[in-house]
Order: sequence, then C-alpha cells, then structure tokens
Amino acid sequence: MAFKIRAATKEDCKEIFRMITELAVFEKMPDQVKISHEELESSGFCENPLFGCLVAEVPEEHKSKEGFTVVGYGLYFYTYSTWRGRALHLEDLYVMPEFRGRGIGKSILSKVAEVAKKMQCARLQLSVLNWNTPSRDFYAAKGAQDLTAAEGWHLIRFDGQSLDNLANDAPKD
Amino acid sequence: MAFKIRAATKEDCKEIFRMITELAVFEKMPDQVKISHEELESSGFCENPLFGCLVAEVPEEHKSKEGFTVVGYGLYFYTYSTWRGRALHLEDLYVMPEFRGRGIGKSILSKVAEVAKKMQCARLQLSVLNWNTPSRDFYAAKGAQDLTAAEGWHLIRFDGQSLDNLANDAPKD
Repeated sequence: MAFKIRAATKEDCKEIFRMITELAVFEKMPDQVKISHEELESSGFCENPLFGCLVAEVPEEHKSKEGFTVVGYGLYFYTYSTWRGRALHLEDLYVMPEFRGRGIGKSILSKVAEVAKKMQCARLQLSVLNWNTPSRDFYAAKGAQDLTAAEGWHLIRFDGQSLDNLANDAPKD
Repeated sequence: MAFKIRAATKEDCKEIFRMITELAVFEKMPDQVKISHEELESSGFCENPLFGCLVAEVPEEHKSKEGFTVVGYGLYFYTYSTWRGRALHLEDLYVMPEFRGRGIGKSILSKVAEVAKKMQCARLQLSVLNWNTPSRDFYAAKGAQDLTAAEGWHLIRFDGQSLDNLANDAPKD
C-alpha cells in the first residue's frame, strides 16, 4: 500500500489529536489527555513552536474503516544534553492498528532521524513502557540502546501538589 | 552560609562547563562530555536558546578551596507532553561537594519549579541513575514520583551508527 510521510500542518491537528487519544487508550491511560486540538494548533504552529510533527497519509482509496486518511504520526521536540549538545526527543510514535505491519512506523521513525541529523542532533531519544514488548523489540532491532536497562536511568516527575509545593518554597529574591 | 540563586549569564559558561565535567565524573562517565563552554554560550545565550540555567553563588569570603564562587547549577529546557502540553525538563542539578547539606540544591530545584509554574508547565521531569540513592531519596522526599518504578517507562536512545542507519533508510520524497 502506498503511503506518504510529510510534515504536519495546522489543519492536521484534529487528526493528530484523535490519534493522541487512541495512543493513550493503548497505553491504558486514556483519562490522562488534558489538551485539545486547539492547544496543538497554538503550541505547534506558531513562531517558536514547542514541537514538530510528521504524519503518515494513505490515498483516499485506502482510507480506514472510519474514513481517515491520516493514519499515523511522530511528534518530537528538541532537547539539550550537557554532554552532547542539541538532541531530539520523539514524544509519540503511533500508527493506527489496521495500518500496522506495512513499514509506516519505521518510515516515520526514519524521517524523524533524518530531521535529527539535519538539525545536528547527536541523539534521538524516546520513552517506552516496559510491557510494550512489540515497541521495545522494534527499537532494539533498529539498534537502539535501552538506557534504563543498561545504565539504570529512572524517569522522575513532579506535578500537581508536589510541583506547587516546590515552587512555593523558592527563596524570594 | 549565604548564597544566591540567579539566572546564569553568558559569562557564567566557563563555570557551568567546569561543573558539567565534575557531574560527569560523579556519574562515572567523565569521557562523555563532548561539548565546550563556547557551545554552551552559543546554544544557551542566543535569540532562541536551547536551554535555561540557574546558578548558585556564594560570597567571595566563602569561595571554594579552588577559589570558585559559582558552586552549583540547574540546567533545564521546555518539552511538550501530548497529554498535558508544555513541560519542563531539568537536565542537570549539581552542587559542588563541599557546599552540600546547606539547602543549595533544594533552592535551585525550587527556583526551577517556580520557572515551570510561571511558564504554565504542568510537570517538572528529570532522570536519575538508580544507584544514586541520595538523589533519588532527595526527590522522593519532595514528593516526586518515580515513573520508571511506578509505570515502567524505559529511556531509549539512538546515536552514532544506529541514528545514521535510521536516517539513511528514510523514504525519499
């Protein structure tokens, strides 16, 4: 099946938002999505965008059961390593279930890697859930290192009350 | 002992770079630092900076054995969550050993949390090595969640040959 990977436009945000929700359902955390497609539009398609996004599109004759032609996406942003400088973080990589097994995810990942190289990033990083073995195997087969397994890195988060408490304790200037 | 937390300036980059190297030695990966203080200057102090940085400074009369007055730093950047929008990632938090135990690290962390709140970030995230129990305990005591332990998130990286291979496989437009 033919498909095309292209940079997302503002007009794709409703479709991207639909797929963000589908991915959250797969990740067993559907009620965690607190943004909206308007939020994606204003954060990603402005003068200093907070992220970049690629979408996978199939021709009209191969649209999904529900009639969608945008069937996958990769959403990324730039980070900074004090060891290596600019890096790229792939926040989400998603292909709708009925379009899997056709190399679409691989193509999105490769295109994101191409962006990383073009922007002189020494690294492309992402996070994956340990029970998501298809994804872990997919990344490992492409040569990725699991830094949590290899070096013992843990991801730590402050949010809600713990973040408020920290900020309230900040020394006054 | 008096100390002050303030936004870093371009003139602090040599001191920040010195402490980045000290932190890498502590993390047992000293040969991983491939950047320079010039790289910090150009990436962090330009029109669209890749990171922000706070430094901790002590008065001249309390300078370190080697004569340093900039004795800690917190380096951060903004990321994007497709569930919650803009977020803040604290890449490095470091206080020189002879200045620990005086609340400097806590003050830097709180000031970074204040930045996060001001910039409407719903989350402050960071990564920590599992053998670094003093740091893990420090964050836990302040209410952080360990997402690797709680939800099973693993950090995955492509770099060097694996990143080149991915990019070379990208479909041609």
